[in-house]
Amino acid sequence: MLNDPVFKGNPSLYVFLPMYYTVWCDAVLTPTEITTIHDLLEKQSWLTKEEKDFLYAQLDPGSPPAPEELKNWLEEIHKVANQSSADSKMGLAEMGLQLAKLHGANNRIPASAKKSLLEMEATLGVISGEATFSYNAAERKTITGQQATKASFDVARMAALLDGHQAELIGRVKTVISDPVFNYPEDVRLEEYRELTLKWCKLLADQGFGAQAYPEAFGGKDDMEGYFTIMEAISYRDLSMVIKFGVQFGLFGMSIYFLGTEKHHKKYLNKTGTLELPGCFAMTETGHGSNVKGILTTATYNHQDDTFTIHTPDEIARKEYIGNAALHGQMATVFAKLILKGKDYGVNAFLVPIRDEEGKTMKGVTIKDCGPKMGLNGVDNGVIYFNKVTIPKENMLDRFASVDEAGQFTSPIASDNRRFFTMLGTLVGGRIGIPRSANSASKSGLAIAIKYADQRRQFGPDHAPEVPILNYRTHQRRLMPLLATVYAQHFALQYLTQRFLNRTEDQMQEIEALAAGLKAFTTWNTTHTLQECREACGGKGYLAENRISALKNDTDVYTTFEGDNTVLMQLVAKSRLTEFKHEFSNINLFGILNYVASQAKTSLTELNPLVIRKTDENHLMDPEFHLSAFQYRERDILTSAARRLKKHLDSGMDSFDAFNQTQYHLVNVGHAFVERVVLEQFMAQVERTEDAQNKTILKKLCALFALSQIEKNKGWYLEHGYMEGVKTKAIRKLINKLCWEVRQDAVPLVEAFAIPDSCLAAPIALN
Amino acid sequence: MLNDPVFKGNPSLYVFLPMYYTVWCDAVLTPTEITTIHDLLEKQSWLTKEEKDFLYAQLDPGSPPAPEELKNWLEEIHKVANQSSADSKMGLAEMGLQLAKLHGANNRIPASAKKSLLEMEATLGVISGEATFSYNAAERKTITGQQATKASFDVARMAALLDGHQAELIGRVKTVISDPVFNYPEDVRLEEYRELTLKWCKLLADQGFGAQAYPEAFGGKDDMEGYFTIMEAISYRDLSMVIKFGVQFGLFGMSIYFLGTEKHHKKYLNKTGTLELPGCFAMTETGHGSNVKGILTTATYNHQDDTFTIHTPDEIARKEYIGNAALHGQMATVFAKLILKGKDYGVNAFLVPIRDEEGKTMKGVTIKDCGPKMGLNGVDNGVIYFNKVTIPKENMLDRFASVDEAGQFTSPIASDNRRFFTMLGTLVGGRIGIPRSANSASKSGLAIAIKYADQRRQFGPDHAPEVPILNYRTHQRRLMPLLATVYAQHFALQYLTQRFLNRTEDQMQEIEALAAGLKAFTTWNTTHTLQECREACGGKGYLAENRISALKNDTDVYTTFEGDNTVLMQLVAKSRLTEFKHEFSNINLFGILNYVASQAKTSLTELNPLVIRKTDENHLMDPEFHLSAFQYRERDILTSAARRLKKHLDSGMDSFDAFNQTQYHLVNVGHAFVERVVLEQFMAQVERTEDAQNKTILKKLCALFALSQIEKNKGWYLEHGYMEGVKTKAIRKLINKLCWEVRQDAVPLVEAFAIPDSCLAAPIALN
Repeated sequence: MLNDPVFKGNPSLYVFLPMYYTVWCDAVLTPTEITTIHDLLEKQSWLTKEEKDFLYAQLDPGSPPAPEELKNWLEEIHKVANQSSADSKMGLAEMGLQLAKLHGANNRIPASAKKSLLEMEATLGVISGEATFSYNAAERKTITGQQATKASFDVARMAALLDGHQAELIGRVKTVISDPVFNYPEDVRLEEYRELTLKWCKLLADQGFGAQAYPEAFGGKDDMEGYFTIMEAISYRDLSMVIKFGVQFGLFGMSIYFLGTEKHHKKYLNKTGTLELPGCFAMTETGHGSNVKGILTTATYNHQDDTFTIHTPDEIARKEYIGNAALHGQMATVFAKLILKGKDYGVNAFLVPIRDEEGKTMKGVTIKDCGPKMGLNGVDNGVIYFNKVTIPKENMLDRFASVDEAGQFTSPIASDNRRFFTMLGTLVGGRIGIPRSANSASKSGLAIAIKYADQRRQFGPDHAPEVPILNYRTHQRRLMPLLATVYAQHFALQYLTQRFLNRTEDQMQEIEALAAGLKAFTTWNTTHTLQECREACGGKGYLAENRISALKNDTDVYTTFEGDNTVLMQLVAKSRLTEFKHEFSNINLFGILNYVASQAKTSLTELNPLVIRKTDENHLMDPEFHLSAFQYRERDILTSAARRLKKHLDSGMDSFDAFNQTQYHLVNVGHAFVERVVLEQFMAQVERTEDAQNKTILKKLCALFALSQIEKNKGWYLEHGYMEGVKTKAIRKLINKLCWEVRQDAVPLVEAFAIPDSCLAAPIALN
Repeated sequence: MLNDPVFKGNPSLYVFLPMYYTVWCDAVLTPTEITTIHDLLEKQSWLTKEEKDFLYAQLDPGSPPAPEELKNWLEEIHKVANQSSADSKMGLAEMGLQLAKLHGANNRIPASAKKSLLEMEATLGVISGEATFSYNAAERKTITGQQATKASFDVARMAALLDGHQAELIGRVKTVISDPVFNYPEDVRLEEYRELTLKWCKLLADQGFGAQAYPEAFGGKDDMEGYFTIMEAISYRDLSMVIKFGVQFGLFGMSIYFLGTEKHHKKYLNKTGTLELPGCFAMTETGHGSNVKGILTTATYNHQDDTFTIHTPDEIARKEYIGNAALHGQMATVFAKLILKGKDYGVNAFLVPIRDEEGKTMKGVTIKDCGPKMGLNGVDNGVIYFNKVTIPKENMLDRFASVDEAGQFTSPIASDNRRFFTMLGTLVGGRIGIPRSANSASKSGLAIAIKYADQRRQFGPDHAPEVPILNYRTHQRRLMPLLATVYAQHFALQYLTQRFLNRTEDQMQEIEALAAGLKAFTTWNTTHTLQECREACGGKGYLAENRISALKNDTDVYTTFEGDNTVLMQLVAKSRLTEFKHEFSNINLFGILNYVASQAKTSLTELNPLVIRKTDENHLMDPEFHLSAFQYRERDILTSAARRLKKHLDSGMDSFDAFNQTQYHLVNVGHAFVERVVLEQFMAQVERTEDAQNKTILKKLCALFALSQIEKNKGWYLEHGYMEGVKTKAIRKLINKLCWEVRQDAVPLVEAFAIPDSCLAAPIALN
């Protein structure tokens, strides 16, 4: 076009160049577009017929301009567009006029031409000011492009807040696990990995970490809190190591400590804490996992020689998934039904040697390997069968029950059921260690994904650098609420730990429910968080070197072991329904239902019609509003679940069916309870935080956590008239705003986890 | 107690035994309980002081009955409780009276005693009838326990419906992949696994499957539909094999087929289809994945010797994640910016030899291994660097652009941008093959989880067999909607395939949006489905032998490759906003916004106040209601996103910022569009189904899919006043009901996928 004599001869025609460039460059030239331009040209009485014909000819879809030609047009446009700016936006019409002027056109173009051009722009769907951005090569400043990391608080002071009075121990653990001997292995075979994991656990035991919780008399430090701290801190490293550590020193060791008596402590605790005696916790059977009360392994008492015979009666009674069993375990705490004179005295625990010190399997014991798993492949899970294995009477862990010299079963707890659940209650620590480990894994995942997203650039405005993906709203929406949740869980798990450490007998039911609920909530959240992190890191997140895959796969079973999460949430619900009952059973639940149902009438306050549609930011950011919303939901769900149950029972439905009918609601009862506790603890932390900067950002994170949960449950709130649509919409908007703000602190917030680089290890997080 | 002379001497005291048993057995004996019983006893004037004192003494928490003693009490209770039944429920009071009678008590107990006992039961929170269940050893029949698999349709006829006219090919593929040579390897090293995967692909090529889509002249069958069918069917086997197959015959082969011209077809297609020439598709760079237009590799034309020089200018320009690159690829389709006489002509594609036939890397080519990944470890992904690698001019894939004899760049498409997106458009098939593969993986996961849940029993009513976990409401809630969704996606993907096969130029934009949206929807759903399946199978789901871990890990990257899902959903949204524009660009979007915004005023019908709270089942099950709800949401979200964008732009916001500001809504536009299409296609399938049984169950699944989606979005519907709380609650209830019903057909429904046992392989699914 530019070199055609018609065009060259008449610089006024440059007025059309930006328009022509745009239609040719950007989209298929549709019949409508052609017609629109034809019509425009038709109206331009100042053009000669020859010029019009020439311009028509340039719109033939069958003969497009050469790519080279199009480039030349753009060069022309740049000459004027570069004078345009965000402040004085130039449209295609204006650019055309300036271009014509530049090339020496003067009086020929009438004022009306500009108006026609503007109309055409609108008809074609071209927004005028956009041309400024597309054709001006000057750097474009955008809000999105300029958003960046900018810490509003001191990272070290936040780290100190998170570690609290455990800082010294945490520091020591981190120093140890930063040693290169703990480096992650690459493409390692199962056998090597398992030996490596054992070696790591021994190194931790050498530091005294394994025995931390045991009494000083037996090589420990009498420091249960320290044990949980260690579990949490080593979870920044390989998680197979963590789980094997937990099996040995937690499950196995604590079963001796809590279910055994002094003779067991003296004989075994020392060797357990040093890992001289590797052990297993053999409770789960192939046929009974969640319903562990139903296990079938038997321990038959033989009075003539003061022994027990441990036996696996059939295939579904074999002990399955037992950590430390496939290779290293030499002894196992075996849960079995105690049979005495033909009578069944319920599930009790026994120490059964399964291998000698050379690793040879004991007579009557058969062990199979569970083989490769989704994750945790450094842990040697196995299947154990007992074929009439005899153990001395003293191997019964006899804190809660024993067989006396006369061969009589004795126990301070009359009921077999109650005794078993009391035993289980002492082992609740596992449901504290696991969520604390899970939350560390979430922290690692978020540290990787957030640091990467702060660096990784993709897309951007024309003529400007590409933008860090953490500046995109959807990316913030994915990661910022998860970051807030990890902080929330951190404080809630601290609280749970303190409750457990300072427990009294009459608080046990509440603490067990709390542990069960927080275990389920946290581990589900870890699964969800790591899945998001994987996706948020795209292809890089799929590479093993960046560790998200290992974090995800290793923690995936956290939602299953130490109690299936769905089952746990129902336990929480039942505990909430019975409230002051120690152990749940159908037979004495239902009076409590009456109690709850009667409460319902008074406890739900009238909804204030002004509040349900209140949308000012002060209100929406108010912690009191958040807590009220959580509490209202918790109470309402609890009472309505109780009412449902009662309705079914009153109608004569079998209680088992009534529970199944209500199961969906019961799980929600559990969720609502845990969510409220987590919020309360986060709020309490904000309250007691003294450092002003820490307080401000924690307050913001707490609000983000609270509002995200409310948004997740907005269907419920709307359904129940607790909020109107205007309010939930305002909350969505506020969450977007908070995500945008927290984004600036996101990198400092994950740096405050102070995960050693050696542990984080992902190349994408270490740039 | 039983042997105490006071008790023995007076059989009337048996009346208290069931009560005493219950309080001792079941819970901690609380002070309130003790007081309650004391009060009761106090009122019994027919008891002597000695008897009362004796009974008080039995309530001392400090001296519980011996476990043995408690067992004896239960034996006594069984004597009368076994006469009780679900029809004539006996409470503790009645049992006590009968027991007293049995032991010879006669006139001593006054009628008032029963009344007191009943009152006490209530006070203690014991529901009377429950005693029947707890103490009656007869088998308890419950609705939950009796629910079971019961097919309402013929599995073979459903399988035939799913396979349609591709049944013969599917059968052939299944026969091939059932050969033991395709068996899954165990704990295999990376190198072996990759060689095995190559071998599998060769075996598939030997069957002609690789070349299926290519023209007959070049060894193929000219059967594109067959190619997609093969991708779907082989996805019941190892997914590394599927992806390597897709890289070789899909990405690499199709790039030659669609971007090359006859000279390339003649020279390479035959060898590609037989896998004689293993190839790569080298588009993504370290620095540019989603924003692929921004890649930095250059192909500089040298006119003096008619060659191109392919070069990697810096580290972020290296080709990354390239399948087949680390080990086997000999040639790569490399996407690079064509530079001619110093000018950049945008991204074009070139065939570059990277290894010789012996596998030696070509001069100037450096290849690194991406190493272990989360999954798909049989695929040898690599990183490629080009250091001034020279290729002949004929290696340019020149369907859309070429350099002529005079050294001029020529193309029928003037704009570099438009040319590139046209090229990409021809490769949309990848976004059909991947979701079809993903849906097969979901089918496998659900087949495993559902068959297991139908067999696995856990918990149950007292004195009755444990219950299959698929009978539990929460378990049904987790799996049944996913099963319905997999069916929905099956039909939607069939539709997408047909649209692609019968495409015309002017439908391309719509088809591309459809493919992008369905790819994102289906692959996200696969991630979610397999996660649920893993958890639903508990510990068994974590064992590698049950294959859910491999399915999950292999498909995890499906949400990332062939376009990051979040980015794709935004593409869909932009396509919906521009509607008739071929390629999206900011500059000509905004007129369309006007168009959409003007539509908004008329398209949203007034909401009928009766309909928004209509809850009868006929209405809620009505497909018209479902589709209207989906359509309303789609239109409303689209127009409100358009309005938001326009508002920002009108206020002078930079368009890049305006898009970021609206990103959250744009992603929802994509979701709402895809959901509507999926529902429409499921409904269309129900309509055209002739077999009455198939039609009935598909109709039910379709309703379950629709209602589950509506429930997922209920927050939105309530927020927008499209439904009231009564209606969303009724929907929740109806979903529970549908889940309960579909559970009976669940196993037959997964059997209709007809996945060969050899492929399913999970021991838990093959019992």
